[in-house]
Amino acid sequence: MIVVTGFKPWGRHKHNPSEELAKLLHGRVIAGQRVESKILPVSYRAALEAVAEIHAISPRLTLHLGLAASAPALRMEKVAVNIADAGPDVEGVEKRGEPVVPGGPAAYFATAPMEEMVDASRRAGVPARLSYTAGTYLCNYIFYLSLHHAGRGAAVGFIHLPLTPEMALEGNAPSMPLELQLRGVLAAVEAALKVLR
Amino acid sequence: MIVVTGFKPWGRHKHNPSEELAKLLHGRVIAGQRVESKILPVSYRAALEAVAEIHAISPRLTLHLGLAASAPALRMEKVAVNIADAGPDVEGVEKRGEPVVPGGPAAYFATAPMEEMVDASRRAGVPARLSYTAGTYLCNYIFYLSLHHAGRGAAVGFIHLPLTPEMALEGNAPSMPLELQLRGVLAAVEAALKVLR
Amino acid sequence: MIVVTGFKPWGRHKHNPSEELAKLLHGRVIAGQRVESKILPVSYRAALEAVAEIHAISPRLTLHLGLAASAPALRMEKVAVNIADAGPDVEGVEKRGEPVVPGGPAAYFATAPMEEMVDASRRAGVPARLSYTAGTYLCNYIFYLSLHHAGRGAAVGFIHLPLTPEMALEGNAPSMPLELQLRGVLAAVEAALKVLR
Amino acid sequence: MIVVTGFKPWGRHKHNPSEELAKLLHGRVIAGQRVESKILPVSYRAALEAVAEIHAISPRLTLHLGLAASAPALRMEKVAVNIADAGPDVEGVEKRGEPVVPGGPAAYFATAPMEEMVDASRRAGVPARLSYTAGTYLCNYIFYLSLHHAGRGAAVGFIHLPLTPEMALEGNAPSMPLELQLRGVLAAVEAALKVLR
Repeated sequence: MIVVTGFKPWGRHKHNPSEELAKLLHGRVIAGQRVESKILPVSYRAALEAVAEIHAISPRLTLHLGLAASAPALRMEKVAVNIADAGPDVEGVEKRGEPVVPGGPAAYFATAPMEEMVDASRRAGVPARLSYTAGTYLCNYIFYLSLHHAGRGAAVGFIHLPLTPEMALEGNAPSMPLELQLRGVLAAVEAALKVLR
Repeated sequence: MIVVTGFKPWGRHKHNPSEELAKLLHGRVIAGQRVESKILPVSYRAALEAVAEIHAISPRLTLHLGLAASAPALRMEKVAVNIADAGPDVEGVEKRGEPVVPGGPAAYFATAPMEEMVDASRRAGVPARLSYTAGTYLCNYIFYLSLHHAGRGAAVGFIHLPLTPEMALEGNAPSMPLELQLRGVLAAVEAALKVLR
Repeated sequence: MIVVTGFKPWGRHKHNPSEELAKLLHGRVIAGQRVESKILPVSYRAALEAVAEIHAISPRLTLHLGLAASAPALRMEKVAVNIADAGPDVEGVEKRGEPVVPGGPAAYFATAPMEEMVDASRRAGVPARLSYTAGTYLCNYIFYLSLHHAGRGAAVGFIHLPLTPEMALEGNAPSMPLELQLRGVLAAVEAALKVLR
Repeated sequence: MIVVTGFKPWGRHKHNPSEELAKLLHGRVIAGQRVESKILPVSYRAALEAVAEIHAISPRLTLHLGLAASAPALRMEKVAVNIADAGPDVEGVEKRGEPVVPGGPAAYFATAPMEEMVDASRRAGVPARLSYTAGTYLCNYIFYLSLHHAGRGAAVGFIHLPLTPEMALEGNAPSMPLELQLRGVLAAVEAALKVLR
């Protein structure tokens, strides 16, 4: 099984491409594996609960998706750090330089093959790059937690997504249509499964 | 008649969305007006000759298209300045702080309704913004020349286009699919014709 | 005589380097010419009155200074456009795509020798560049007005200034110390007077 | 003892503020501790040798300095990752996604108090921010190596420095004068020693 997570809209954003992609991927069968999607509120507590549930069912691949409002392309995240440092989530919880997991290692590398996923996205015509920092907010938080709690042989990755054109109509921020984002993510998932097989 | 111009690829770029859009628009009939497209090399001389030919046939709307490799969205240009200051064109001609037209006014405003064209593109779901500087290279050059030589009642505008995803696969530059660019430009042309009617 | 104008702080900024530089320059004698500085509120009305007063006394050089909060270096402005399009000034006056001077030309070029001023600033060790757009807010407004009302032989220029380090402590925006800004502006004024002599 | 390292110029840069600051700090006594500086070529081999030498003498604080040509302010690095992925060093050695230390942990956190160092720099009037990625080139390489080889109680930190104004005369990149960089680094070192005491 493949688990995909996306976040609900928050702050000034009325949409979140990570939610929309998670919905579009739900129920698809990719390389023989069925996708199970979860939509989460932008909440530390919800992320913690979701990660526990996900790794209880031992998916082959867990792909977390999140929005990076200034990203011009898919950003495949290689590193999750043990730091939470960001403003309030939707429940008003703030984290100021705290560890994600007290006593955990400084960082984990993605166990999904992010480099191959970047290549596959580009081969599918979708701009993508490898990134070495997923920030210190909820995207990094769920990514670190998931790598911390995943069992042996359970691959975990994170992809930061650009705004969609509908979210960027004023023309000052870069964007990418949802169907292009979907094509890149699908190519990345297929490439991951090929490597992980 | 509507005349659309696009430029051929140059420098490190193997494609130019302005060429591709000009080709896609050629022969279309928009609001009863037929589009006649011209593809130009990135050459001062070719721009000068093309402008002379275009305004000899008095098109109702002349829309010049060009590439702005860092633009995240359609950039509808409001101002053409009487300055040419840029590296060599494909014929090796350089201009260093020279006027486009010696003795011409410092600038012209677009005579196409760029504000309405921005609004129309956004309404069509395509990110766009108004810009007050078209640079000092060939894009500004043809834009200024065209405004200088256009007859009364001949509307002239310029749209700077982003890279296409195929041109931005490495994921560091913003891009916009050609079909989205086309949708925005078509909406802009329709809006222009409605205002100009 | 040399007239220098600066603006008072506005919006979220508690300081304005253009005010501070104008004060530092006031009373100095550069190449035999005395500097007379004026500090203005960020107000369309005040700009209009100041321009009238300034050109009533026919200064040899009028140098308007303003803040460009994202500029990494001195931005010597070459072009003032006949457009005012910006949010409310300190008196609550908004301009939405209006001309600065109804019936005025689309743009004026600076009559101060901005290219030589850029070179002089760089020779003095101060990063600077020529710019072809001064925006559409009060900086462009006073610049256009001043060029419109200046008499023959009265040179007018505009320099956009970066934040000072004190204004940029959070480390996300570029900045330049006031003494470096001063050195660049002084070198630019000296170069201007040498050309204008 | 405090050890400070800086790099020699490389690539298109004729200067390197990290070399210049290391020289300016050499021999200074800060809070009773003498600074010993080392200037290194941009070479993986030289970095490896230097780190071995440094930690053989057990300095109380080791501060590595490097250039980040697009940084507008001091960037105090919190995280060193076990990845080397960058073009050739001065000896022509390339690293393509290799670990810095095979079998080492994914990342180390700085053991110098980077947050307090950021605060101290700002209090001294010098723009600074905390960063969670030091890249994947020699800056991250020496930082990771140094954290890997440092003994218990040996604090290690890294500060990325902006260009100096002399290196950024063209006015497109942000810069910070060397004396301001020095003031920020000195304030940071003092703050570090206060915490570490």
